[in-house]
Amino acid sequence: MIKLLVLNGPNLNRLGKREPGVYGNKTLKDLEQDLIQYGKKVGIEFGFFQSNHEGELIDAIHDAEEHFDGIILNPGAFTHYSYAIRDAIASISIPVVEVHISNVHCREPFRQHSVTAPVTIGQIVGFNFLGYKLAADALKSFLGGN
Amino acid sequence: MIKLLVLNGPNLNRLGKREPGVYGNKTLKDLEQDLIQYGKKVGIEFGFFQSNHEGELIDAIHDAEEHFDGIILNPGAFTHYSYAIRDAIASISIPVVEVHISNVHCREPFRQHSVTAPVTIGQIVGFNFLGYKLAADALKSFLGGN
Amino acid sequence: MIKLLVLNGPNLNRLGKREPGVYGNKTLKDLEQDLIQYGKKVGIEFGFFQSNHEGELIDAIHDAEEHFDGIILNPGAFTHYSYAIRDAIASISIPVVEVHISNVHCREPFRQHSVTAPVTIGQIVGFNFLGYKLAADALKSFLGGN
Amino acid sequence: MIKLLVLNGPNLNRLGKREPGVYGNKTLKDLEQDLIQYGKKVGIEFGFFQSNHEGELIDAIHDAEEHFDGIILNPGAFTHYSYAIRDAIASISIPVVEVHISNVHCREPFRQHSVTAPVTIGQIVGFNFLGYKLAADALKSFLGGN
Amino acid sequence: MIKLLVLNGPNLNRLGKREPGVYGNKTLKDLEQDLIQYGKKVGIEFGFFQSNHEGELIDAIHDAEEHFDGIILNPGAFTHYSYAIRDAIASISIPVVEVHISNVHCREPFRQHSVTAPVTIGQIVGFNFLGYKLAADALKSFLGGN
Amino acid sequence: MIKLLVLNGPNLNRLGKREPGVYGNKTLKDLEQDLIQYGKKVGIEFGFFQSNHEGELIDAIHDAEEHFDGIILNPGAFTHYSYAIRDAIASISIPVVEVHISNVHCREPFRQHSVTAPVTIGQIVGFNFLGYKLAADALKSFLGGN
Amino acid sequence: MIKLLVLNGPNLNRLGKREPGVYGNKTLKDLEQDLIQYGKKVGIEFGFFQSNHEGELIDAIHDAEEHFDGIILNPGAFTHYSYAIRDAIASISIPVVEVHISNVHCREPFRQHSVTAPVTIGQIVGFNFLGYKLAADALKSFLGGN
Amino acid sequence: MIKLLVLNGPNLNRLGKREPGVYGNKTLKDLEQDLIQYGKKVGIEFGFFQSNHEGELIDAIHDAEEHFDGIILNPGAFTHYSYAIRDAIASISIPVVEVHISNVHCREPFRQHSVTAPVTIGQIVGFNFLGYKLAADALKSFLGGN
Amino acid sequence: MIKLLVLNGPNLNRLGKREPGVYGNKTLKDLEQDLIQYGKKVGIEFGFFQSNHEGELIDAIHDAEEHFDGIILNPGAFTHYSYAIRDAIASISIPVVEVHISNVHCREPFRQHSVTAPVTIGQIVGFNFLGYKLAADALKSFLGGN
Amino acid sequence: MIKLLVLNGPNLNRLGKREPGVYGNKTLKDLEQDLIQYGKKVGIEFGFFQSNHEGELIDAIHDAEEHFDGIILNPGAFTHYSYAIRDAIASISIPVVEVHISNVHCREPFRQHSVTAPVTIGQIVGFNFLGYKLAADALKSFLGGN
Amino acid sequence: MIKLLVLNGPNLNRLGKREPGVYGNKTLKDLEQDLIQYGKKVGIEFGFFQSNHEGELIDAIHDAEEHFDGIILNPGAFTHYSYAIRDAIASISIPVVEVHISNVHCREPFRQHSVTAPVTIGQIVGFNFLGYKLAADALKSFLGGN
Amino acid sequence: MIKLLVLNGPNLNRLGKREPGVYGNKTLKDLEQDLIQYGKKVGIEFGFFQSNHEGELIDAIHDAEEHFDGIILNPGAFTHYSYAIRDAIASISIPVVEVHISNVHCREPFRQHSVTAPVTIGQIVGFNFLGYKLAADALKSFLGGN
Repeated sequence: MIKLLVLNGPNLNRLGKREPGVYGNKTLKDLEQDLIQYGKKVGIEFGFFQSNHEGELIDAIHDAEEHFDGIILNPGAFTHYSYAIRDAIASISIPVVEVHISNVHCREPFRQHSVTAPVTIGQIVGFNFLGYKLAADALKSFLGGN
Repeated sequence: MIKLLVLNGPNLNRLGKREPGVYGNKTLKDLEQDLIQYGKKVGIEFGFFQSNHEGELIDAIHDAEEHFDGIILNPGAFTHYSYAIRDAIASISIPVVEVHISNVHCREPFRQHSVTAPVTIGQIVGFNFLGYKLAADALKSFLGGN
Repeated sequence: MIKLLVLNGPNLNRLGKREPGVYGNKTLKDLEQDLIQYGKKVGIEFGFFQSNHEGELIDAIHDAEEHFDGIILNPGAFTHYSYAIRDAIASISIPVVEVHISNVHCREPFRQHSVTAPVTIGQIVGFNFLGYKLAADALKSFLGGN
Repeated sequence: MIKLLVLNGPNLNRLGKREPGVYGNKTLKDLEQDLIQYGKKVGIEFGFFQSNHEGELIDAIHDAEEHFDGIILNPGAFTHYSYAIRDAIASISIPVVEVHISNVHCREPFRQHSVTAPVTIGQIVGFNFLGYKLAADALKSFLGGN
Repeated sequence: MIKLLVLNGPNLNRLGKREPGVYGNKTLKDLEQDLIQYGKKVGIEFGFFQSNHEGELIDAIHDAEEHFDGIILNPGAFTHYSYAIRDAIASISIPVVEVHISNVHCREPFRQHSVTAPVTIGQIVGFNFLGYKLAADALKSFLGGN
Repeated sequence: MIKLLVLNGPNLNRLGKREPGVYGNKTLKDLEQDLIQYGKKVGIEFGFFQSNHEGELIDAIHDAEEHFDGIILNPGAFTHYSYAIRDAIASISIPVVEVHISNVHCREPFRQHSVTAPVTIGQIVGFNFLGYKLAADALKSFLGGN
Repeated sequence: MIKLLVLNGPNLNRLGKREPGVYGNKTLKDLEQDLIQYGKKVGIEFGFFQSNHEGELIDAIHDAEEHFDGIILNPGAFTHYSYAIRDAIASISIPVVEVHISNVHCREPFRQHSVTAPVTIGQIVGFNFLGYKLAADALKSFLGGN
Repeated sequence: MIKLLVLNGPNLNRLGKREPGVYGNKTLKDLEQDLIQYGKKVGIEFGFFQSNHEGELIDAIHDAEEHFDGIILNPGAFTHYSYAIRDAIASISIPVVEVHISNVHCREPFRQHSVTAPVTIGQIVGFNFLGYKLAADALKSFLGGN
Repeated sequence: MIKLLVLNGPNLNRLGKREPGVYGNKTLKDLEQDLIQYGKKVGIEFGFFQSNHEGELIDAIHDAEEHFDGIILNPGAFTHYSYAIRDAIASISIPVVEVHISNVHCREPFRQHSVTAPVTIGQIVGFNFLGYKLAADALKSFLGGN
Repeated sequence: MIKLLVLNGPNLNRLGKREPGVYGNKTLKDLEQDLIQYGKKVGIEFGFFQSNHEGELIDAIHDAEEHFDGIILNPGAFTHYSYAIRDAIASISIPVVEVHISNVHCREPFRQHSVTAPVTIGQIVGFNFLGYKLAADALKSFLGGN
Repeated sequence: MIKLLVLNGPNLNRLGKREPGVYGNKTLKDLEQDLIQYGKKVGIEFGFFQSNHEGELIDAIHDAEEHFDGIILNPGAFTHYSYAIRDAIASISIPVVEVHISNVHCREPFRQHSVTAPVTIGQIVGFNFLGYKLAADALKSFLGGN
Repeated sequence: MIKLLVLNGPNLNRLGKREPGVYGNKTLKDLEQDLIQYGKKVGIEFGFFQSNHEGELIDAIHDAEEHFDGIILNPGAFTHYSYAIRDAIASISIPVVEVHISNVHCREPFRQHSVTAPVTIGQIVGFNFLGYKLAADALKSFLGGN
């Protein structure tokens, strides 16, 4: 069974409360429950971690190498400036998929540039919570689980 | 049953022959067969069209509105400059998902900018042929088929 | 009697269906009927051509030199990148007027730059279908018909 | 009967004397006489004001709201930097059409950018004095006079 | 008793009429009455001047040095390009505070750059008419009146 | 009684020691004592938090929504790049005012750009510690306390 | 005997008619006759294709791989924006030489940038029709024919 | 005898008072007296005009054509943005020399760009009041007076 | 005896594991042992701290002022965006030397810009672990220890 | 018989030793021998000069006007910044062809810009030593020798 | 008696032959004779040096400090990129005036930027040979000789 | 024993005289004596060359390959634009270390960019003359001498 870490960055603990017009009104807890359900069906075990602290996300990326087969990463606003998270991803050997809940390409200009994307294996942008499932499918396939 | 148009842009007819280090060595025909198989399993009927002509892609997008429920679009190099395809997407009412086979974010700088992305409902970048299946899943979910 | 070609670029066949908030809900057919009526009143014979294909527009510009006295051109999205259409205009000796239906200056930034304008004799921007009549008047005056 | 203010900006008092290769050799007085004649024919009463003073143009825009149905504005060089005139236009409720005598798109690069255009209803560029008549027609149509 | 000049730039005479969604519906006269009331309470005597003319604002800044202890300046759109007003401020010895009624940082990009701010002692942005009172407090404190 | 959180970002714990030519020689403790005194006079209860950790500032912004009526935020250097703090501000419903002690517009160019300002209700820049009191007044007024 | 495709892009069918000051007054037919003559002398068989349609040029590049040993390509205005033609060149294994009739470096700025050059084996710029013969020599040498 | 207009722009009435470290402590009156003296020696009659109003400077440039043989112009801060003054200079037939008192090249970056310089016959930058005399000599020579 | 803090930023705990082609295969522990040995020889006592947390690095810089004579800082990816670390360095009085293990000038463009360098006394770039020793020598010399 | 100067710029004396992967392993001497041979066949007499000194290249360009009919110039790295060489070319009346051995368009970005190209009659890029022969042919044709 | 070095940079030895439409048809020798004559009249002894070699110009600037009271420098094309000449000027204590024969502001864009101007005491641009005399006057005045 | 060439670029012959606030008051001779002393202690033989001529520096780099084991290069102002020196470094096989005496990162913006750094093995910036010793140590270590 494949083990994937779902790593959510800053302000994603506010899902359901934060700008519901953009992000919907389901919470991070809802997302995690959905994924656990989905994991049971397709044979993926999920771990979850959310932090508003760049350093904690970097630590989590480092640690994941030993305990997980891949990472589903929504870096939140760190997407746009955290070269430190980029280097963390580049420093590990397990694959990372970048997910964004909203279609960042039709929001503020700064949201259209990702400094982390070049060191991931792919990005999934704009499908609300479904994006996390698609990312799980992509990682499973990448890891030969399909 | 949901009907989706798989629309591939310039040079994608060269899949399997074109830069295999970047795009793999399976052909466009292989991709279409895979998707037909997948469609049978998940209840999606696929139509296929590829063209190296910007105008034909625009015509196809216009026509799709009547015959399909959604479009999976890989605009190829038109991604980076075809404001005409962008306007075509904006002129129809069915949803479009943008797919790229390779991780465009770690190639030449011009490949990192998409003029079409802002008028799609989402993008899937970098998972080889799997990206098309993920896009199909995303459209099915968006259309309430899930 | 003056003969003018009305040349409409990509997605203008979608008039009436496409983003009515921006472009109104009258169709290309309506536009052409209006112009024929107007032409009868002011002594102009109109020809009409619309295409989503850049190459067909270039061919039409080349051919127009023999059959028309001037061109009313709405290049649609090609306005912003088709240096090939620009060169086509520069390669003929009859005058061209550029028309845009909406006020491109208060839309996305990319719509504010025209690569074709420098080789036309003038632009008319933002007056809905009326712009075509104004362009006809301008060409008639330029050609000494007034 | 529709009343329109014809508002000309800096250096347009030099028409006929200033760079005749660019602007022709008819004077501002000639332009005004032409328009008065044209107005009689089509049912428009024109007012005229020219100033080299940005502040006087702003004052005139403010005052026009009470005495005119619309403004034909040639902001001259202020087109390219007067955000104050832009704000003046935005602060009134009658429609403004921007006119340029020469085709600004094939002159110096700075002439291709208009800070005022986004708050007007349209622009007419490059048809010499005829542009003012076309603008009058456009405003008349916009105001329902046609 | 401290004497402050309240200097308002172009289009601020339109307060109450101009884009009320942005600027509210109270007039410049209302603002001045409010400040006179406030001045009585806190011991400040206000002078008022508004102009749409850059040159008159420069003259007023020069003259203020002799008759006032400080200036509350809302340069309106001149904020973004009037290096001449900037030089005027730099040429006097009394302190200037820059005020903007709306939050310029969430409007058009050009409104986010101030050429005058570097030569003032501070800026107050976004609190409607209250900003003028805060500026008065700041100047009073700066001048040792508190 | 209104409750406001005074949130100071990186290096503001160094006040009094850090570049006194720029920031003065009073300490953060002094600032807090001043504000407590001021609060007693005008009926505001202040909470205080300072951190050099972006994540802690984000957590504090999230938590403030339940315990405070508004936030006075000096993001320090995070002003210039922390899109994560920007998103945190956008994710809460209480108002935030941005304060800077020095006039950032006459220092290094990078200090003139704020990524957080667009999601606050206003900015107060350049009045040393007084800026915090002005921000308190502004929030009190915004909250109807005046 | 070496077989080379001479591929001319948009508006090159206008040679002789189009801006003779820039492009001379010999026609495309003249160019082709010259090359046939030259080919007989040096042992090269030429194929010819001209199109104003980007898609047709892409198709021709794809097809050339089977029928020719190399391509002499004058992409016309597509030089400056057709990433699709660039990708087409990259997708084939026969060598391509880029030719421009005029010295693009002393014309408009946009003509100085080539998006296709990086995937060709070389460029020849500015020698009128002679450039095609030089390109033929270069390809012959590259292919070992010399 | 040659007649030259000495035209000084915004804030130059502050000479002697304004930033003496940059501009010295002699006044505009002193400058004019110096020039009158100098004119007597070398056979030049000077006229003088200073204004903080862009429009008045434009009017003065227009009027100068009839009463003077040339203009010595220090546009002050208008140097950097007044395309209207640039157009005024271009609209007259007498020669203009641009003068700056301080060496603008070692001050703020915005001071290094002149929009008016391209339409003058030359610039003299950085020699304090002496620059005006040098400009007078240059105009005299240009006008054949030497 | 001189006391120096060796401060390593994000991902440097991954030395030996992270991209060995770029950073070599010795670990952070190895680096620290090397330096302790070197310190014994040249009379320097080293303290060590590594963190992936920007805030902890800022705290460490603040604290170092009391316990160390200088800092050897490898800010890792924070080099390129942490204005907060820059301000922390500027807020202390002991000297800081910036070290990079690899030659950042021949890697991605973003690695060539350092926001921290202007407030250090010097940089040493590209000599692998040796750079830390050179930095120690430089600080010793700067502190007069040599 | 036509006389051409072959002028090679900095580091071209290192041909054969310098980055053979880019420039091949034949020497400058080899190139010169090749050209002498070729010259005998086609009736061109070659002169040769190489220098790493910009000034010597300028001197050589000046002197060439009297002794040669044209120049084949490989400016090496001076291509990208030597406006002085550009001016030297513009100051003589014999034609110059610019040659580059490698395809500069697929190397570092700075190599894609030529400051000298606009004043030459054409460029030949990317065909190794053959480029010099093609340049000789082009000059011979230009000079009417063919 | 004041001694000034007249230092002319690359291609100025071509005066009279080089682009006479831009630079006139008098030679460098003529210029020097003119200046010697002028020097006799006003009490200045001139030295002359021209070189196409940047290094020789730098050497001459260094040496001038001992033998001259000031330098009149026309850096030719080095104006636009020779930071080495800039540093040479900054390294000496005698004043330097920069002269350009033509009005660089109305030629190619690259000619409008001077890297040397910030370290000179002033610039004189566009008065043909007269500029050198004006520069001499300026230096004489600066040196107290007037 | 290791042999290193110390290569100093333009204006470094002025050390001690040139801007002592930036570069100190010791001379180039002093630097060389220091290094000779240091070389005796650590077993390095130094050669020295300084030139203000770019071409001489290139020649010296070429020649060094045969007579030295490595180069310590301070390119002076050539750092910022001499792509020819960059190519010279790339054309040799011995290692080069780049040294700057002052901290270029806190001076003018143009000093922060090095075109030569990418082809060296490392840079040492800002430690006055000590930087040369550190560079010697670095080269010795790189060459296995330690």
